[in-house]
Amino acid sequence: MESRISELQQRFENALAGWLPGENILPARLHDAMRYSALNGGKRIRPVLTYATGMALGVPLERLDGPACAVELIHVYSLIHDDLPAMDDDDLRRGKPTCHKAYDEATAILAGDAMQALAFQILAADPAMVDNPSARLRMIEHLARAAGSRGMVGGQAIDLGFEGQTPDIAQLENMHIHKTGALIRAAVMLGSSSCPDVNWELADRLDCFAKSIGLAFQIRDDILDIESDTQTLGKTQGADQALGKATYPAIIGLEASRQQARELVDRALDSLKDLDEGADLLRWIARYIVERIH
Amino acid sequence: MESRISELQQRFENALAGWLPGENILPARLHDAMRYSALNGGKRIRPVLTYATGMALGVPLERLDGPACAVELIHVYSLIHDDLPAMDDDDLRRGKPTCHKAYDEATAILAGDAMQALAFQILAADPAMVDNPSARLRMIEHLARAAGSRGMVGGQAIDLGFEGQTPDIAQLENMHIHKTGALIRAAVMLGSSSCPDVNWELADRLDCFAKSIGLAFQIRDDILDIESDTQTLGKTQGADQALGKATYPAIIGLEASRQQARELVDRALDSLKDLDEGADLLRWIARYIVERIH
Repeated sequence: MESRISELQQRFENALAGWLPGENILPARLHDAMRYSALNGGKRIRPVLTYATGMALGVPLERLDGPACAVELIHVYSLIHDDLPAMDDDDLRRGKPTCHKAYDEATAILAGDAMQALAFQILAADPAMVDNPSARLRMIEHLARAAGSRGMVGGQAIDLGFEGQTPDIAQLENMHIHKTGALIRAAVMLGSSSCPDVNWELADRLDCFAKSIGLAFQIRDDILDIESDTQTLGKTQGADQALGKATYPAIIGLEASRQQARELVDRALDSLKDLDEGADLLRWIARYIVERIH
Repeated sequence: MESRISELQQRFENALAGWLPGENILPARLHDAMRYSALNGGKRIRPVLTYATGMALGVPLERLDGPACAVELIHVYSLIHDDLPAMDDDDLRRGKPTCHKAYDEATAILAGDAMQALAFQILAADPAMVDNPSARLRMIEHLARAAGSRGMVGGQAIDLGFEGQTPDIAQLENMHIHKTGALIRAAVMLGSSSCPDVNWELADRLDCFAKSIGLAFQIRDDILDIESDTQTLGKTQGADQALGKATYPAIIGLEASRQQARELVDRALDSLKDLDEGADLLRWIARYIVERIH
């Protein structure tokens, strides 16, 4: 499975490199910053989820490249903006200087802005995608909602609103459902919508899968901030703790957090129970999420 | 014509207010910031252009509300981000404190990000828009390109790259073609694409119209920075000069700038010569652009 994932990651890098304007295209510094932040980094959880969901439904990989790029561009832009001094003020991301450190704040803001536009451009125009304009429109609507003020961006705003206060577990969960959950659900939705004849019930179960692993992923992230070290993590270890951020371990404790992540993954796997071995990659990802060390 | 424009502006305010989440919807501060920046402000040149273009082609107004909102949301988000301390660092916009002054920088960044997502959500999902999924996808692609790194955001990056240097007139024009021109063309394109049976030649002439008035608009903006006062302008008078910004008057002089704006408007009007009186509002806007005092 690991080699399958590597192949998909490599495939994804090539697809994304193809969509991003070259560093030689003007404005060169902006395009350079976009490539710097978007390429050769991260676990690519969201694109891999898009591919794995499509594969579970028999969708050819080339139809999934565009959706995978779109969802990851939204994710990467949000990281660039979240790292800005006015937000989390982080210097390291994926083991490298953050975009505003490597370039400057203005370029980082613009690089993020341009990536969001590119995500929607791809979904509207990629010729390899599902040959169904209405399905594409549903994907665009879903991604836009997931990215917007009642999705990912809203989650970031909720997170900022916690500053100086300790949220209860319901408030924390609500924040994560928006901040990371919405985009993970979008990654799976874009995969299932790439299948021209997916049935709604199956799409619904895949969405349940996505909801469960989305929250499990975030709990694991919170745990890793405590357990891991900066080098393995690729970002500053203990940054959440140092900032006094609300995390699962801070509110319900480390062991209860681990337990909850495991339960969510069990629930995710249960959502896939009627799918055949085509969904094994999805199953592997669910387990990976609670076992990963970075 | 002025009362026609006021009616369209009022219609637009209602449409946009309907699309923006209410201040009582969580996260409330974010939605409040979005409404603060997006509503009750500005000349609404881009939405009015979308309406006027559609009206010239006999498109019912309700079909144009969504496209008008989408293009203006992109414009407003770009103003919020451009005003940030890392960019133009401006305290006043449309006579009110800028978004990051009225709220805070993080909220301003997020409000802009969420507006961009909302723009694409509207184009994908507005039920009143043209009943042709392929036409909608073309609109989304066009707006995404116009907003992206080779459109508006690219223009802002080019502008930042000028800092400390004086561009020649070709470089300045190239910057404006991207920074403001792309979105003005998108406003007109979204209007013409809302007509189910527009012919390509006519759409092309309308695009020529948009190119000419887009540049004229920017030249007039540069002139107003010198001629007008802060109260009439609603933003800090002389801000461009104070920042040593490249402007038309700074490079080719005030009189030559006025002359060029007039020539561009003549060219714009010429592009409309085969259209009947349905295009009179477009003609009025073209003239308004060089005559306006704020």
